[in-house]
Amino acid sequence: MTVLPLRPDLQGCEPYGAPELDVPVRLNVNENPYPPSPAVAADIAAAVGRAAAGLNRYPDRDFPALRSALADYLDAEAGVRLDWRQIWAANGSNEVMLQVLQAFGGPGRSCLSFTPTYSMYPEYARDTFTRYVTVARREDFTLDTDAVAAAIERERPAVVILASPNNPTGTALPLDDVAAILEAARGHGPDDAAAGPDPADCVVVVDEAYGEFRRPGVPSALELLARTDAAGAHRYPHLAVTRTMSKAFGMAGLRLGYLAGSRELVDMLRIVRLPYHLSAVSQAAALAALAHREELMSQVASLREERDALVTWLRAQGWTAYESDANFVLFGPFADREAVWQGLLDRGVLIRVVGPDGYLRVCVGTPQEMERFRDALVHVTTGADTADTKENNA
Amino acid sequence: MTVLPLRPDLQGCEPYGAPELDVPVRLNVNENPYPPSPAVAADIAAAVGRAAAGLNRYPDRDFPALRSALADYLDAEAGVRLDWRQIWAANGSNEVMLQVLQAFGGPGRSCLSFTPTYSMYPEYARDTFTRYVTVARREDFTLDTDAVAAAIERERPAVVILASPNNPTGTALPLDDVAAILEAARGHGPDDAAAGPDPADCVVVVDEAYGEFRRPGVPSALELLARTDAAGAHRYPHLAVTRTMSKAFGMAGLRLGYLAGSRELVDMLRIVRLPYHLSAVSQAAALAALAHREELMSQVASLREERDALVTWLRAQGWTAYESDANFVLFGPFADREAVWQGLLDRGVLIRVVGPDGYLRVCVGTPQEMERFRDALVHVTTGADTADTKENNA
Repeated sequence: MTVLPLRPDLQGCEPYGAPELDVPVRLNVNENPYPPSPAVAADIAAAVGRAAAGLNRYPDRDFPALRSALADYLDAEAGVRLDWRQIWAANGSNEVMLQVLQAFGGPGRSCLSFTPTYSMYPEYARDTFTRYVTVARREDFTLDTDAVAAAIERERPAVVILASPNNPTGTALPLDDVAAILEAARGHGPDDAAAGPDPADCVVVVDEAYGEFRRPGVPSALELLARTDAAGAHRYPHLAVTRTMSKAFGMAGLRLGYLAGSRELVDMLRIVRLPYHLSAVSQAAALAALAHREELMSQVASLREERDALVTWLRAQGWTAYESDANFVLFGPFADREAVWQGLLDRGVLIRVVGPDGYLRVCVGTPQEMERFRDALVHVTTGADTADTKENNA
Repeated sequence: MTVLPLRPDLQGCEPYGAPELDVPVRLNVNENPYPPSPAVAADIAAAVGRAAAGLNRYPDRDFPALRSALADYLDAEAGVRLDWRQIWAANGSNEVMLQVLQAFGGPGRSCLSFTPTYSMYPEYARDTFTRYVTVARREDFTLDTDAVAAAIERERPAVVILASPNNPTGTALPLDDVAAILEAARGHGPDDAAAGPDPADCVVVVDEAYGEFRRPGVPSALELLARTDAAGAHRYPHLAVTRTMSKAFGMAGLRLGYLAGSRELVDMLRIVRLPYHLSAVSQAAALAALAHREELMSQVASLREERDALVTWLRAQGWTAYESDANFVLFGPFADREAVWQGLLDRGVLIRVVGPDGYLRVCVGTPQEMERFRDALVHVTTGADTADTKENNA
């Protein structure tokens, strides 16, 4: 009898991930429903073809070209000019986040986040032996910054993760709240960290995976990275903002996540990154895609409008639907959300069971996909084939 | 004054990696010197182009098509037929190895390896808070399996890593040695691991990154994966063999490493893998490259011959050069190996300072590159511009 020495805390765990089902309408993992045009796909292929000619060689470990292109993109998208050495990238923002926890977390350290929030955060903590501590958001999913500051003072976390817009609620954080949390984080990092007389700060990560979907007037935390003190030094060197090409950019299959922060912070991630973690193929494909950013992002405005219309429609049906700055909407409550999810799936519409009890998350697809979703939801919640109706939730 | 909470054990660490220098002859990171043909590069580009049309969607998390193709490749290369669910892959075999340590290592656990060996192993251990324990190889870099068994009994490691052929020495392990170590590993895993009455085994990883360069008659540890007991069950479910497309396959830029083992072991890695860790672009490019395996591997035989000729030549010059089953040779000793390395670099030849004191590692390039290496080494070690000559090493 063989017993493999799986870590005790992993025994019984399942691999993370939503069901991968081949159905007509997939609104479960917050993808952009619009594929790249044939011209963009051809450009990506051509770029990879050029890289392929040298694939016998290892890729550039520090990929300055891609980091520069990402800095240019952030300048265009958020109006914040960063040096390429302030940018880092990896195979999805989940690898970036793992690297953050590898550099700053670990046994005896903690990571603080605010529930309900993205369900991968506890996995990053688990995979790095970091204690995962949560504080509940307010009922409307905003943050009480006084409660956050108190939790920071109490827990002295190495890393604070703020999703904005938050997944699965869609809630964006006001910059003043982020700034208040950054101030609270000063000197309140883990007490085993300081090499000199000054206490360590907490690293504050603002996860802007869905940042490009924010409503007009909602700022990006990138703006805080541009702030300097009287001496011209970065005001928040302990701030990191993560982004991804998976969502608004429509490149989920490419797995390219990135982070913007101080050079000091980025250089600490370089210590724990595996050498050559980003392939020459990924670098070439991402550069080619970034060159087409206007076309790839051209549907973001219409997705935002579709999202706002979805919130309005759900409310008109009598459901609670939360305002969203992302490309998804949390709605409910349902007495049996699993039954609603299954009923939608039976009609070819795949959404996600996630978030507070009784709620479901649907992501914004094409107008045709949203029409099928609306029809299916009406059928499932009012039809004879389900016991779950709005009346049941009164 | 900001103090970022970098883990104390990382303070002062440098990012891992050999210098990336643009010189005419690069023999420092054990790449295959032959680039893919234009036809192969075009096929990779075409495959990526097809995948690019759907890049707005996440990739297949479990990538059965690629795992099946890798199983077919191993069958053709080593004559061992494995089920696709016995194969796992990630962005380089270093990500695979990190996942192995994430699943089986961790605080309070140890990883045992045999020095001199690959210098990334302690980094995988460090990144997963696993204690890294080493036992010295014999003077000829073979393993004393009795000493290995004693170390296993003493340390009860979660993971034992055996590089074969070993980097930087080129030493392959006889299958009998691997089998003896697998037997020693039974029931000697960490004592916090067993959920039932049976003690846990150690996971034994045979790192065959350079496996395809082994000399005729030298078997792969994959053969042990095919062994079954009287009841038809896997004899060594605690064995994992890692491979890579970076070396013999000539696809270092693609970053595709993989592992073969029991389904049970592979499924445990799936718990700690980040979801969608392998991009659709990587999957498509790797599948296209595997379809051209004969062409991409066509130079392996000549690289082996070039390697054997290099050993013979180095010995004829009076140096010690170790027999190698890989695509590199360890040679020396030099009173000042740094000076020899620099002297070669000054002549456009980049090799690697690694391994036992006084030794250098050179990888096998094209015949033209090896000629430049030989000329440069003769100049550097006998010329007037260096004090380091063979006589100095008498």
